[in-house]
Amino acid sequence: MRGIAYFWVVVLALGGMFVYIAHAAGHAGGEAAPIFGITIPAGYRDWKLISVAHEEGNLNDLRALLGNDAAIKAYREGKLPFPDGTIIARLAWSYVPSEENNKVFGRAQSFVAGDATNVQFMVKDSRKYAATGGWGFAQFKDGKPADEALLKTCFPCHEPVRARDFVFTRYAP
Amino acid sequence: MRGIAYFWVVVLALGGMFVYIAHAAGHAGGEAAPIFGITIPAGYRDWKLISVAHEEGNLNDLRALLGNDAAIKAYREGKLPFPDGTIIARLAWSYVPSEENNKVFGRAQSFVAGDATNVQFMVKDSRKYAATGGWGFAQFKDGKPADEALLKTCFPCHEPVRARDFVFTRYAP
Repeated sequence: MRGIAYFWVVVLALGGMFVYIAHAAGHAGGEAAPIFGITIPAGYRDWKLISVAHEEGNLNDLRALLGNDAAIKAYREGKLPFPDGTIIARLAWSYVPSEENNKVFGRAQSFVAGDATNVQFMVKDSRKYAATGGWGFAQFKDGKPADEALLKTCFPCHEPVRARDFVFTRYAP
Repeated sequence: MRGIAYFWVVVLALGGMFVYIAHAAGHAGGEAAPIFGITIPAGYRDWKLISVAHEEGNLNDLRALLGNDAAIKAYREGKLPFPDGTIIARLAWSYVPSEENNKVFGRAQSFVAGDATNVQFMVKDSRKYAATGGWGFAQFKDGKPADEALLKTCFPCHEPVRARDFVFTRYAP
């Protein structure tokens, strides 16, 4: 009897771990970004939503910010600085008018996500990235990392929000 | 020895379940929406991202579509119709220019999520909601459901996309 109970508890344990691992799965790895040595984090497309935004101008995109569990926890608790291990992902897609939606609304008002443009990551490691506020930066387009020249522009741009641990995006309730 | 191993396996099992349940947690329940009897689904703010959009006009919002596991699986596999149990959540926030971001970009180009406007749900139950394409519709503002008159407008508006099982939003890669 005890052996059978033991067996089912093991099944339950492995099942629980499997569900959790399956949830975190996704495309990842590949070539590392220069300077900071960051590769695409596993399962980032499954992460929870931080917020959304629209950039006009040359970017002309719709974007979503997703966070790993450390990021979401820190955001929801309002705790700064973000702990080591935090990763924030910025996904972006071209800003495309939706003819289909506009037809239903009876006016041109609807803009949706088109093709993916690129994906960026901020990775917190206060020792490794001490020279850039504790953050490493990376950008990938179709899995290919952006070059060193581009990544050198990340930290100077984020410096104005030092008081929010160099992170622009606020959590959307 | 066997007793100790048993103990740790139980700890592991309970720990795994706790992590999974904690992940799905969130505000939920409350007053049911009229007609379809839908309450706010547990943990919807933790669901995975389907896509994002911007509506101009009277809505003037930034929005994110999130899906429960059934929704995400169907989207990723490109399978229609969505299975019973699918829930799609549409979150929306007021469309707000970001002075802070604009200062960094050196031009007015950045729009971010302001206050939450309302949240909508499409719930698939092909028997219960047979009269409306298998979908129940709900909208909540600050936890309060929208009235019957508003909910009666949902299905007619979604009818033009019958070929996509009445769902407008496409999955953003």
